[in-house]
Amino acid sequence: MLGLEGSCEPDCPVARTADIISGKWTTLIIRDLLSGTKRYSQLQKSLAGISPRMLAERLNMLAEHGIVSKTIYPTVPPKTEYSLTDRGLALGPMIEAMAVFGESLAAQTT
Amino acid sequence: MLGLEGSCEPDCPVARTADIISGKWTTLIIRDLLSGTKRYSQLQKSLAGISPRMLAERLNMLAEHGIVSKTIYPTVPPKTEYSLTDRGLALGPMIEAMAVFGESLAAQTT
Repeated sequence: MLGLEGSCEPDCPVARTADIISGKWTTLIIRDLLSGTKRYSQLQKSLAGISPRMLAERLNMLAEHGIVSKTIYPTVPPKTEYSLTDRGLALGPMIEAMAVFGESLAAQTT
Repeated sequence: MLGLEGSCEPDCPVARTADIISGKWTTLIIRDLLSGTKRYSQLQKSLAGISPRMLAERLNMLAEHGIVSKTIYPTVPPKTEYSLTDRGLALGPMIEAMAVFGESLAAQTT
C-alpha cells in the first residue's frame, strides 16, 4: 500500500496526515463540513460537548493548513461560515473509511 | 456517504472510530502493524520518539478493543509479538486514505 512500507519515518505520509488531523474534535469538524458549509453556531450545536475555545482553535488550525476556509459576512452581527477547501474535501475517503469501521463496531457489539 | 449525514451524535460511527484511534501514536502503531507482525522492540525502533510507557499503554488499549493481538513466547527472555486482528485489518483503508492525503500534502509543498 502507498506509503505504508518500511519504518514509520517522522515524515512518512501517514504521520504527516496524523500531525494535522489527529484528535477527535478535528476529525468530527471535518466530518460535519463534508455535508456542506456550516455556520459557527451550527458546528457548536452539532459537536455536543466541544468548548467554544476548542472549536475556534481547531477551526483556525484547519484554516492554517488550508483544509477549511472561513468566510465572514458583514452583517450585524457578523455571520461566519466555514467550508472545506479542495484539500479538505480530499479527506472525505478517510472519514468515510472511519464511518465504515465505526458501523462494523456497532454491528459486532449489539 | 455512510454515517456522514446529519448532526454528529456522540455515538455516530465516525465518533466511535475516533474514540478508539484518535491520537497520532495509535494511528502509527496500526500503520506499522499493517505490514505484518512486529516485536515490541521493532515497534519502538520504528516509532522514533515514543516512550516505552506510551507504547505499552497504546498497545494494551488496542488489544482491549480487539484491534491488536499480543502473543507471548516462553523463551528466555520472553518474546512478545503484536499483530492486527481481523478487526484491526479493517482499519487498512482508513490508514491508506491518510497515506494518500499525506502524499498530496508533500506534492503541494515541495
